[in-house]
Amino acid sequence: MTLPPLSLNFSYLELGVCDYPEQVPADRWAGYAAAQKALGLRFVRIAEFAWSRMEPRPGVYDWAWCDQATETYAAAGLQVVFCTPTAAPPAWLVELHPEILPVGRDGQVKTFGSRRHYDFSSPVFREHSRRITRALAERYGQHPAVVGWQTDNEFGWGDTAQTYSPAARLAFQGWLERRYGSVEALNEAWGNVFWSMEYSAWSQVPLPNHAVAEVNPSHALDFMRFSSDQVAEFQEEQVAILRELSPGRFVTHNYMGFFSAYDHYRVSRSLDFASWDSYPTGTLEAIGEHHLADPALAFEFARTGHPDVTAFNHDLYRGVVGSGAEGKPAPGFWVMEQQCGQVNWAPSNPLPAGGAVELWTAQAWAHGADVVSYFRWRAATMAQEVLHSGLLRHDEKPDRGYAEVRALDLEQFPAGVVTAKVALLHDYESLWLYDMQKHAEGISYWAQTFAYYRALRSLGIDIDIVHPDADLSGYAVTVAPALTLMTPERAAHLEEAAGHSQLVFGPRTAFRTLSGRTPETGQFGPLAALVGASLCSYDSLRPGMEQAVGGHRAHHWAESYELQGAEALHRYRGGPLDGQPAVIRQGNVTVIGAHSESLIAEVLEPLLTGTGLQTVRLPEGVRLSRRGAVTLLQNWNAGAVHWNGQELAGVSSRVLHATEVHV
Amino acid sequence: MTLPPLSLNFSYLELGVCDYPEQVPADRWAGYAAAQKALGLRFVRIAEFAWSRMEPRPGVYDWAWCDQATETYAAAGLQVVFCTPTAAPPAWLVELHPEILPVGRDGQVKTFGSRRHYDFSSPVFREHSRRITRALAERYGQHPAVVGWQTDNEFGWGDTAQTYSPAARLAFQGWLERRYGSVEALNEAWGNVFWSMEYSAWSQVPLPNHAVAEVNPSHALDFMRFSSDQVAEFQEEQVAILRELSPGRFVTHNYMGFFSAYDHYRVSRSLDFASWDSYPTGTLEAIGEHHLADPALAFEFARTGHPDVTAFNHDLYRGVVGSGAEGKPAPGFWVMEQQCGQVNWAPSNPLPAGGAVELWTAQAWAHGADVVSYFRWRAATMAQEVLHSGLLRHDEKPDRGYAEVRALDLEQFPAGVVTAKVALLHDYESLWLYDMQKHAEGISYWAQTFAYYRALRSLGIDIDIVHPDADLSGYAVTVAPALTLMTPERAAHLEEAAGHSQLVFGPRTAFRTLSGRTPETGQFGPLAALVGASLCSYDSLRPGMEQAVGGHRAHHWAESYELQGAEALHRYRGGPLDGQPAVIRQGNVTVIGAHSESLIAEVLEPLLTGTGLQTVRLPEGVRLSRRGAVTLLQNWNAGAVHWNGQELAGVSSRVLHATEVHV
Amino acid sequence: MTLPPLSLNFSYLELGVCDYPEQVPADRWAGYAAAQKALGLRFVRIAEFAWSRMEPRPGVYDWAWCDQATETYAAAGLQVVFCTPTAAPPAWLVELHPEILPVGRDGQVKTFGSRRHYDFSSPVFREHSRRITRALAERYGQHPAVVGWQTDNEFGWGDTAQTYSPAARLAFQGWLERRYGSVEALNEAWGNVFWSMEYSAWSQVPLPNHAVAEVNPSHALDFMRFSSDQVAEFQEEQVAILRELSPGRFVTHNYMGFFSAYDHYRVSRSLDFASWDSYPTGTLEAIGEHHLADPALAFEFARTGHPDVTAFNHDLYRGVVGSGAEGKPAPGFWVMEQQCGQVNWAPSNPLPAGGAVELWTAQAWAHGADVVSYFRWRAATMAQEVLHSGLLRHDEKPDRGYAEVRALDLEQFPAGVVTAKVALLHDYESLWLYDMQKHAEGISYWAQTFAYYRALRSLGIDIDIVHPDADLSGYAVTVAPALTLMTPERAAHLEEAAGHSQLVFGPRTAFRTLSGRTPETGQFGPLAALVGASLCSYDSLRPGMEQAVGGHRAHHWAESYELQGAEALHRYRGGPLDGQPAVIRQGNVTVIGAHSESLIAEVLEPLLTGTGLQTVRLPEGVRLSRRGAVTLLQNWNAGAVHWNGQELAGVSSRVLHATEVHV
Repeated sequence: MTLPPLSLNFSYLELGVCDYPEQVPADRWAGYAAAQKALGLRFVRIAEFAWSRMEPRPGVYDWAWCDQATETYAAAGLQVVFCTPTAAPPAWLVELHPEILPVGRDGQVKTFGSRRHYDFSSPVFREHSRRITRALAERYGQHPAVVGWQTDNEFGWGDTAQTYSPAARLAFQGWLERRYGSVEALNEAWGNVFWSMEYSAWSQVPLPNHAVAEVNPSHALDFMRFSSDQVAEFQEEQVAILRELSPGRFVTHNYMGFFSAYDHYRVSRSLDFASWDSYPTGTLEAIGEHHLADPALAFEFARTGHPDVTAFNHDLYRGVVGSGAEGKPAPGFWVMEQQCGQVNWAPSNPLPAGGAVELWTAQAWAHGADVVSYFRWRAATMAQEVLHSGLLRHDEKPDRGYAEVRALDLEQFPAGVVTAKVALLHDYESLWLYDMQKHAEGISYWAQTFAYYRALRSLGIDIDIVHPDADLSGYAVTVAPALTLMTPERAAHLEEAAGHSQLVFGPRTAFRTLSGRTPETGQFGPLAALVGASLCSYDSLRPGMEQAVGGHRAHHWAESYELQGAEALHRYRGGPLDGQPAVIRQGNVTVIGAHSESLIAEVLEPLLTGTGLQTVRLPEGVRLSRRGAVTLLQNWNAGAVHWNGQELAGVSSRVLHATEVHV
Repeated sequence: MTLPPLSLNFSYLELGVCDYPEQVPADRWAGYAAAQKALGLRFVRIAEFAWSRMEPRPGVYDWAWCDQATETYAAAGLQVVFCTPTAAPPAWLVELHPEILPVGRDGQVKTFGSRRHYDFSSPVFREHSRRITRALAERYGQHPAVVGWQTDNEFGWGDTAQTYSPAARLAFQGWLERRYGSVEALNEAWGNVFWSMEYSAWSQVPLPNHAVAEVNPSHALDFMRFSSDQVAEFQEEQVAILRELSPGRFVTHNYMGFFSAYDHYRVSRSLDFASWDSYPTGTLEAIGEHHLADPALAFEFARTGHPDVTAFNHDLYRGVVGSGAEGKPAPGFWVMEQQCGQVNWAPSNPLPAGGAVELWTAQAWAHGADVVSYFRWRAATMAQEVLHSGLLRHDEKPDRGYAEVRALDLEQFPAGVVTAKVALLHDYESLWLYDMQKHAEGISYWAQTFAYYRALRSLGIDIDIVHPDADLSGYAVTVAPALTLMTPERAAHLEEAAGHSQLVFGPRTAFRTLSGRTPETGQFGPLAALVGASLCSYDSLRPGMEQAVGGHRAHHWAESYELQGAEALHRYRGGPLDGQPAVIRQGNVTVIGAHSESLIAEVLEPLLTGTGLQTVRLPEGVRLSRRGAVTLLQNWNAGAVHWNGQELAGVSSRVLHATEVHV
Repeated sequence: MTLPPLSLNFSYLELGVCDYPEQVPADRWAGYAAAQKALGLRFVRIAEFAWSRMEPRPGVYDWAWCDQATETYAAAGLQVVFCTPTAAPPAWLVELHPEILPVGRDGQVKTFGSRRHYDFSSPVFREHSRRITRALAERYGQHPAVVGWQTDNEFGWGDTAQTYSPAARLAFQGWLERRYGSVEALNEAWGNVFWSMEYSAWSQVPLPNHAVAEVNPSHALDFMRFSSDQVAEFQEEQVAILRELSPGRFVTHNYMGFFSAYDHYRVSRSLDFASWDSYPTGTLEAIGEHHLADPALAFEFARTGHPDVTAFNHDLYRGVVGSGAEGKPAPGFWVMEQQCGQVNWAPSNPLPAGGAVELWTAQAWAHGADVVSYFRWRAATMAQEVLHSGLLRHDEKPDRGYAEVRALDLEQFPAGVVTAKVALLHDYESLWLYDMQKHAEGISYWAQTFAYYRALRSLGIDIDIVHPDADLSGYAVTVAPALTLMTPERAAHLEEAAGHSQLVFGPRTAFRTLSGRTPETGQFGPLAALVGASLCSYDSLRPGMEQAVGGHRAHHWAESYELQGAEALHRYRGGPLDGQPAVIRQGNVTVIGAHSESLIAEVLEPLLTGTGLQTVRLPEGVRLSRRGAVTLLQNWNAGAVHWNGQELAGVSSRVLHATEVHV
C-alpha cells in the first residue's frame, strides 16, 4: 500500500516519538515499540544519525538491523518517518575525503567528532549525499510502514549553514556571476566604490570572513543568500530522489526555533510541509530572553518557557511552506521533536513544571500542528546528550513527562484550520540586514518583531507569520514590524494589500534596497507615497536612555517623520525629536517609529477592532489560541491567575468550544 | 600660483567638508560645490578611498573624473585637500600580490573587503604606495586649487598598526639588530635571562603574538616602537614625494581620538601639522567611558560627548607636531573630520543634542583648531556607513547639523595662540608599558592621565599636552600623570624644568627603564634625587576596594614612599599603607601616589595659584577655554547650569572678551 | 656525604627561598646567601629557568656560574634544591626543532617568547629533556649541598598540559589502541553509535579540539587521561635519570593550586613527595571566588586570601603522593613557592595585610608542610614579573614580608603528623566529566567539592583529601562530594569502607561509568544497593532560582531519589520536586542531593559527632588545624573576632597545646 502525500487522515492531533534503535540492544526493540503504541503514539522518527551503521565501510551497506527495526515498528502498528542520515557523515568518509569538512568563520577546518561536519558547497559530499539517499530510498521508499521522510537533521545546527571553504568561495563567485552578469553590475549593486572595493574579475571576490573590519553589508547579504541557496539545493537533490523512489510519502525537514542563518522560505520550497523542534525551556534560556523586553520573564517562565516565544515559532513554521512568493496553500506542520523533560544544551536547564508537557502539546495543536513527536523515547546512556531527558529515564522507567502524555485526551484536539485574520510579515533578508547593522545595543530584528507579536498576542489575536511577498488578500490587518528591505515590486504588493486591509509598519521600514543600499530618496524609498511621509531622523538610544512618546517610553530606537500626506497620531515629547511625529497614518497605512511594546499595543488595539476583530487584554502568560471551532485558553504562569471572572490554575489549559467563549 | 606652506592666512576659524564625488553621479557635483561654498565652507577633502577609480586596472590611470571634480570645486571657489589613496588598495593589487595583506595578532591573513588591508612592512606595498603617490602628485601637485595633502587615512584603524606577517618578522629582526648591535646587548636590555629567553641569533626572535603566555614586556615594547617606525617610514616615503612634486602645499594626517598603537610624536615628524577626526559622541560611547571615573557621565553627556574627552584630543593633537624632542614650534591643527550628526560605529549611536555641532566647532577653535572640516557632505547611500550622517541626508535634504553650521558666526572665532601655562606630559612608550602590565582592574594609562587632565580642566586651566622630552621652559606647572619610562637624560631634563617651575608626578613614575626593565635601585631610579624619596609599597585595589588618604578615597592604585629629603603632604589612613606618605613634596617637585581625582585637584589647586595662575572651580560639564584674547565659556550639560551668578543654557557657548571675564 | 631520601630530619618547620643567581651580578651572590642564612632559611631552590645559561649553544655546557652559585650557597650553610630546566627550552633548540612547540586548542602553534613552549608528546623534546637532565644530574647529582630535585616547573602552566599537535594526535591514537585493543571496543566504550561517530581505523580518531560542537565526553575524557599519562611519562623519564645519578636525594614537583588539567595522583607516582606553589591572594582573585558561594568573601579576604581556599590545597597536595590506589604512605609535602608580598598575575593584586606571611606560613605547617619556601628572594628587575614581590624589593631593601619571616619562632611549629579522621574523596576523572557537562550555570566540580570542605572546616574538622581508591580504613567519616565516575570495583571498595565508617555522597554520584557513559540502570549504577535508592529527577537551577529543602535553600542543583531501602532525612518543599527525598540514608551511607552549604553542615554535624569526633561551630575566617599535639587557631579576618570567650585579633594565629584546647 502506498500512501498519497498528506492523506494521513488527521481527525485530531496525533503523537509520535523520536527513537534510536541502533543505540540500544535489539532485545529492547519489540518492548519499546509495544509501549510506544500503548502510550498512544502513532509515528516513530528514526535514523537521522545512523549512517555509520547503514554503511559501516565505503560502499558496504548493512540493512539487516534497519530492516528488523522497521518491521518491529510496523508489527506494533506504528508508522515510520525515515531520515536521510547526512547530518552525520561517517569517519571513513572524512578520512577518504577530508575536503568535505566545513570551514568556520575563523578559517579553521571543523573536524570529525560531533555532527554536521560537512560542507554544503562540497561537490564530493553532494555526491555522497545523493548516493546514500538513493540507497536508503531504494530500500525503504515503498515500505508500507514508511509514511514520510525527514531530510538530514536541523540544517545549520552548530553554525554550519555558512562555510568558508575554498569550495564555497568558488561557488559564491559563480553564484554572483549568475546573479549580476558582470562585475560592473556587482560593483554598482553593492556600491563598491565606497572604499575602493571594486572588483575587476570574479576571482577577486573574497568570502566575507577575514576582512580588516566589517565588510560591505551588500557583500554579506549576498553571501547569506548564496548560503541559503546552497542549503536549499542540497536538500532539493535529496528530495528529487525521494520523490522518485518513495512515491506517496511526504518529505519534511525539522527546523530550529528562531534559527535565521538561511532563508527558511527558500529552503522549504521542496517540502510538503515544515517541521520544527520545540524546546520551550531551552529556547527561553538560550535565546528567548534576548527577545523579551523584560528579563524577569525569563525567571518567571523558567519551567515552562514563555508562551509567546514558543507560539511564535509555531506560527512561523506553519507558514514557511506556502506563504512564500510561490503561494502554495499552507499545509500544516509537525513538531518533530517536542521537549518532554529537561534539555541539556542551555546554560541552565531547569526541570519543567508539572503539566508543562501537556501545556506544550496543547499549544502546538492550537497553533496548527498535526503531529507532536516527543524527543526522545529513552534518555541516551552515552555520548553528548546523557543529560537530556526522554519519555523513559536512563533506567527505562517512565520519566515525568510520560504520565502527562498518557493522560492526554487527543479528542479534545480536533483537526482544523487556524484562521488568522492578522498577518505578521517576516523576511530573512531584512533580518540579515537589520542585524548586521543594529546601530543600537539591546535591539535586533527578532526583538523588534517579537514586540509586535507580543502586543498582538496580549490582545488575544491569532497571527499568521508570512513572507512579505505572500498573498495577503485574506487578512484584515497586516503588520510588518521590521521590513527594512523594500523593492518597487514589494511596495506595489503592499499598496495592493492596503487597498483592502490595515497595514502597520515598524521602524526602519524600507531603509534598504534589494542589494542592501539605502534608497537615493532616503527611507521610505518606493513606499514613500503609500506611507505619505519620509524619514526625518532616527535616534539610537543607549541602554538606559528613553524617549517619551505620549505616555509611553521608547527604548533602543526612535525615528521621526516628515509628513507628506500622512497625519501624526503621536509625537515625541522632549529630547532631540521633541514635537516630531512618532506614529503616523495615511489611509489604511500606519507607521510606528518608536520601539515600545505598550505604544504598539495602544496603536494596534483600535485598528484591530476597527476591522471587526475582537480584542481582549490578557495578563502576562495567559493566552488564547483558536483552531477550527475550538479555543484554547492557557495559563503558563506557575501560579493561578484570576482573569475574566475565573481562576486559571498555574500551568493549565482549558479547551473552550464556540459556545463557551465569552471574553 | 603656488601657496607657501601654512600661509593659508587664517584670520578666524575656517570650515571644510569631506566629500566623495566618486560616490554620486557627476550631475550632482556642481550643485554640491555651490552649496558647500554658500554654506561658508572653504576646504574640501577628497579621494582618500578612490584608488580603484584612479587606477581601475594595473598601471592604467583614469584621471578624467578626478580632473573634473577638482575643476568643479575650484570653479566654486573651494580649496582642495587631496589624499593619497593608500588606505584602500584595489582588488587587483591584492590579487596580484596577496603578500601585501596584513596578518592579525591571531595569525590570520586579513583579506580584501573593507579597508586598510595592507602591511606596513611589505616592500611590495611600499613600492605601490610610492607609485600611486607619485602619479597623483604629478597630476595635481601644482594645481592652484590644491592647498595641501592628507597622507593615507587614519593610520592604524581596524587594528592595523601592528602586523604579524613574515615580512614584519624579518623587518623586526633587522630593526633590533640596528638598535642593539648584538644579541648579547639585546638579551641584557630585555633581561632575557629571566625565563631562559636568551637569543643566540637574530633569526630566533619571534613576533610577540603566539607565545604560551605574556611575552617579555621589553619584547612587546620594542615591537611597538618598531611598528611606529614602520608607520612613520611608510608616511615619510609619501611625504618626500609630495614635497618634491607639490611644493608650497601642506602635508598632514588625520589621527583618531585616544588611538595609541603607534607613537604619534614619531609618526608626525614629517608633517606640517596634525589633524584628527573628532567624533564626540562616538568616542564617549566607544572609548571615553573607560577613562571616566564615573560611568554616569557617559549617560549625562550621551548627546554631546563629554567636553574633557574631546578637549583632551584637541590639546593632544595640537601638540604632536612640535612638542616632541625635535622641538619644532607648534603649528596649529585641523579637525579633518568633524561629526555633524549621529555616527554609526559605536555600540549605540545617540542623536546629538540640538546645538552640539556648534558646541563642538567652537570648542575645537578655542583649543587651537585652524580648520573644522565636517564629515561628510551627504550621507552615503551604500556600503558600510549608510547609518552615518552627513550635512545632507540620504535624500539630499539638509540634516540637523546643517542649520547649525549655517548659523555659525566665524568672526567670533578669531585666529590666535593657545597660551597654556600648564604642560601635561604624555609619552606613548610609557602608555604601552603601563597598559601591558596594569596590575589592577579598572585602571589604565589613559584613565590615570585623564584624571589629571579633568582635575586641571575643572579648575579652569588651559593645558598643553606635550612630550616629556619637549621644551618645558614656557610652563609654570608641568604635570606628568603616568611617566613610567624614565632615562637619566629625561631625568636631567625634568630636573632642569623643576628649576623654574612646579613639577607634579603621578603613580608609577620612573618605574621602568628605557628597555622596559625596572631600575636596579627601584622606583624612582634616576629621578630619585629630584623627588627626594623612593618607593615603599604599591597597592592594587580590587574594583570596589578603596584606600583613605586625607578626606579622599583612592581607587585602583595607591603607592607609598620612603622619604629621603621630601616631606609628606598627605598620608594614608587605614589599610596596609596606614600612616605612610601618599603625597610628597621636595622643593618644586610633588608626587601624588594615590589614584583619586579629588585628591589630585586638592593638591594641584594651591600649587597652581602659587605660580600666579588663576583657578576657578567649574561645575561638571562647564568649561573655560582661552585662545588669544578670547575666552570661550561652554555648558555641555543638557540642562541649564547656574554658575558664577549667571545662567548658562544647556548645550551652549558664550564667547567672552578680555574685558568680560570675571570668574 | 649522601643524604638518604627524606631523612632531612625535620624537628620543626623549615624555611627556604627561591633564588635566581643568574638574574643578578655574581658580586651579589655571597651577600644574598649570607642574608638568607641569617634570616633563618635552610633551603634554596634554583635553576628552573636557567637552561639558556647552562647550555648557551647546542651541546655546549657552561657550568662555571652554576658551580660558583652552588658553592656560594654551600659555603653559607644553605642546602640546594636543583631544578631540571625543561620548563624553558632555549631559543636555539626551538630554531633547530620547531616541531617541539606545542599547539593550542585553537590550532595555533605556540611560539617562543615566554615559557613552557614545548610539547609533552614530542619525541624530539623528550630526547632533549633526558639529555639536559642527565648532564645536570651528572654534574650536581652527588654534590653534598644538593639535597633534592624539582622536576621542571609547574607542569601545565599556561594551558600546556594539553597539546593538539600532529605528534599528540599520533600518540593519542596509539594510546587508545593500547587501552581498547580494537576500534569496536572503543566504539562501544564511547558509545560512538550516538551520532554516527564510529571509527573503523585508529587513524580516523581526531583530537577533540576542532569539532563542529561539543565532542563525545568519552572522547574528551580519554584525551585528558592520555594527556595526564604524557605528563607523567615525561616526568618519569627525568626521575629515572635523577634516581640513577643522584642517589639519596628527593625528587618532587611544584604543582599549582586547584590546577586540574592532569591527574595529579597519576603524575605524582614517581615522586618522593609533592610540593605546591601557594599564592593565597592571587588564587582568591583568579580562581577562588568562583568556588565560594558568597562573592563578598572575595572582598573581605582580599588581603589574606581565604583560609579554606589555601588549606584545601595544602590538604590536597599532602595527599597526592601516597593516597592514590598505589597506597604509599603519605610523605608530607613542601610549599615550594610561598607568596610573601603582592603577586602580579591576578586581575587585581592587593597588597597582603600585615601579618599575612606569618599567617600563611603557620597554616602551611599546621596542614602538614615540612618546608615553606618563599618566592622569591629579590623582586625581579626585568621581564614578565617585575610587578611581583620578593623578600627583598627591587632596591634590595627588605620588603614587608621580610620582617614577618624574621619574626617567626619556628620552634612553635614542631614536626608531627596530621591525623585527620575525615577523608574527602577527590578524583580528577570525575572532575573532568563534571565540568565538561555542568548542566547548570554557577556550579562546577570544585565548587561542589569545596562546599563540603567548607562545611567540614567550619565545624573545626581536619580533613585528608584522598583518592577514592585509596585506603580508607583509618577514617571515621568519608565524604565524596562529587564522585560522578563509578566502577563496580570502586563501588565494592566504598562498600567495604561503609562497613566501618560513615559514608556521605553529594549530587551526581555514580552518574558516569569508567568510559564516561551513564549506567544502563541509571544513577547510582553499581552503587545502588549500597545507597538503597535510585535517582528520580535532577533539577538545574538557573542562577537566582532556589529550591527549598527543610530550612535551607539549594542553588544550582537539586536531585531527588526513589527509595529502595534508604530512608529520607530531608525532603524538598515546593517546586517540581515537592515532597521528594533530598537527603537519604541507608545504614552508614548518606546522600545529599541538593547543593546547599548550610544543609551539608546540618547533615554532617550529627554524623560527625556520632562517630565520636568533636565539632565546633567556627565563625567565617576563624579556623582550627591540628598537627601532632599542637592546635593552630587562626583568624583570617581583617578585624578582631570574639569567639569562645576570647578576642582573636585580626590576621592572627595562636598555637594551642593539648592542655589549652577547650573549644
